[in-house]
Amino acid sequence: MKTVKLSIIGFGAVGQGVAQAILQKKDNLADMDINLVVVAISDRTGACVEPNGVDLEAAIKRKKEKGSVATTDLTSLDVIRDIDHNIVLDATPTNIEDGEPGLTYMLEAFRHGRHVVTSNKGPLALKYNMLCDEAHKGGVQFRFEATVGGAMPILNLARDALAGNMVMSIEGILNGTCNYILSRMTEESLSYKQVLGEAQELGIAETDPSYDVEGIDAACKLVILANSIFKMNVTYDDVDVTGITKITPESISLAGAEGMVIKLIGEVRDGDDAIIKVVPKLVPKNHPLAVGGTLNVALLRTDMAGPICVEGRGAGSMETASAVLSDIIAICKKEF
Amino acid sequence: MKTVKLSIIGFGAVGQGVAQAILQKKDNLADMDINLVVVAISDRTGACVEPNGVDLEAAIKRKKEKGSVATTDLTSLDVIRDIDHNIVLDATPTNIEDGEPGLTYMLEAFRHGRHVVTSNKGPLALKYNMLCDEAHKGGVQFRFEATVGGAMPILNLARDALAGNMVMSIEGILNGTCNYILSRMTEESLSYKQVLGEAQELGIAETDPSYDVEGIDAACKLVILANSIFKMNVTYDDVDVTGITKITPESISLAGAEGMVIKLIGEVRDGDDAIIKVVPKLVPKNHPLAVGGTLNVALLRTDMAGPICVEGRGAGSMETASAVLSDIIAICKKEF
Repeated sequence: MKTVKLSIIGFGAVGQGVAQAILQKKDNLADMDINLVVVAISDRTGACVEPNGVDLEAAIKRKKEKGSVATTDLTSLDVIRDIDHNIVLDATPTNIEDGEPGLTYMLEAFRHGRHVVTSNKGPLALKYNMLCDEAHKGGVQFRFEATVGGAMPILNLARDALAGNMVMSIEGILNGTCNYILSRMTEESLSYKQVLGEAQELGIAETDPSYDVEGIDAACKLVILANSIFKMNVTYDDVDVTGITKITPESISLAGAEGMVIKLIGEVRDGDDAIIKVVPKLVPKNHPLAVGGTLNVALLRTDMAGPICVEGRGAGSMETASAVLSDIIAICKKEF
Repeated sequence: MKTVKLSIIGFGAVGQGVAQAILQKKDNLADMDINLVVVAISDRTGACVEPNGVDLEAAIKRKKEKGSVATTDLTSLDVIRDIDHNIVLDATPTNIEDGEPGLTYMLEAFRHGRHVVTSNKGPLALKYNMLCDEAHKGGVQFRFEATVGGAMPILNLARDALAGNMVMSIEGILNGTCNYILSRMTEESLSYKQVLGEAQELGIAETDPSYDVEGIDAACKLVILANSIFKMNVTYDDVDVTGITKITPESISLAGAEGMVIKLIGEVRDGDDAIIKVVPKLVPKNHPLAVGGTLNVALLRTDMAGPICVEGRGAGSMETASAVLSDIIAICKKEF
């Protein structure tokens, strides 16, 4: 059995989901010959460290009861630099202004020869190439399936399951909150504001919903697809973004009369007619992209396999943990 | 650059498609540090062998013009046993009676320490566990993405992209010919016989269509999913199979009036309520499984990621070559 040591940096919904998943999946991991030991967990308040394995149940309980996982004053940076381990999971929140603190954490991990798995879009939307260069210099892997589409596999799908194919374009619904709002507006003939209020009550939309409804979140994901699958070297500022706040029940009803629905579609392709934009589009009702609820979907056009469509839940603690865990397992299988 | 030596056993549509793909993808493979050399190609008539690499263009031309790839009297078995190489691609036709000749070829490859990639469903539908045991004894990989769903990734999706998840059930359309016939019957209110004739003219259905329309092909694929993803230890005889030959335009029209379509659905799940069957089913028109044309689709229910749906082209020379190539690349990345 290979012992692989992991730190969890950031202990919100994603970090706790991964801790829960590791607890639940101990036997499955053992079947794959993997003994995954969480040697440290940190949040804003400090860290808990245990070289033989943090008690994950106790850590989750402590976080829920006290709002903090810390049992020492060690910071996240202290953990990344000084605690002996193999993989850093950066599960800090996305910050689209300067990518911090995740950006610094990832760079520091690479410099210390630690693999990085992340669910944090900010650093990738701003500094993708620099991060890849530093991972390469450190001789380590950098994986980020959880940054795009939640549980819906897309990066690892394009890289592994479709290995050998050239992906020519990707179109997709990359934000579940927008999809929920548009789907409800369509089904119930309600206004944007009415549905937004409902979504906020259900916890599907944030109190400040602008990150989702203005298309920013979808644009960040598109940048990650553009850079990692198309090698395009773009940042968030290169994306042409329109959100869903101006969409009226009337426009949805007009679309419906023509057999169409309105969806917020992210689209990326490279080459002479390169495009990278997030914009509300008319989609035929029976088109593969016309999925409802909070689902995410992506349609990849490839040279050999033709069109491949994949859909799944775009968010959720366990769904994101699933994507993180697939990345951790891939590193364990390849490197240990 | 890692040099990996491949033999292509069987040089019909799949074998030629893979040869074409290797020619086209030389640079992409080089980017992955892979120098893939085809050292032998065989068909029923003999083999051509060239330790420094068969001229693939000439081999395809020879096959098309003369109906044979052979330049020597060596048989496929001679190639598998005696020619120095790493990976055997078994691209021989599916035989559901006894799995031959593919079954013998695969076993012989394992005994000689060669990895096997295959597009041939027969041996897997009949002797899955024996094949896996022999691959394990030989210390080699056995990969067969191309046997299920053509270009649609499903085996590698479940194994890698969804690694760590337990797949609880799979439902899907696994035969493009049946889907084409049912879709056309639905759209044009035509009879089964009318559409079958049309499909035969277009080359979508065989002259003897029973393998497809009786559900045999879908059942073989389901057995492969059951054994590889659910570890169920079943063979073709364990599948409850009903084909599409009895479906009438009247039943399709009745379904349509209720917002449903009729699709040939393969379904597998393990546990107390284990099921493995292929049967025409009513599917709501807006359900993810209600895809048209010759498309294949699969809906995987998982414990962490939730429902994941994937669709793609279920057949075609280049589409199948895409699946084969992804398996070859996976072996190259892992083993060399």
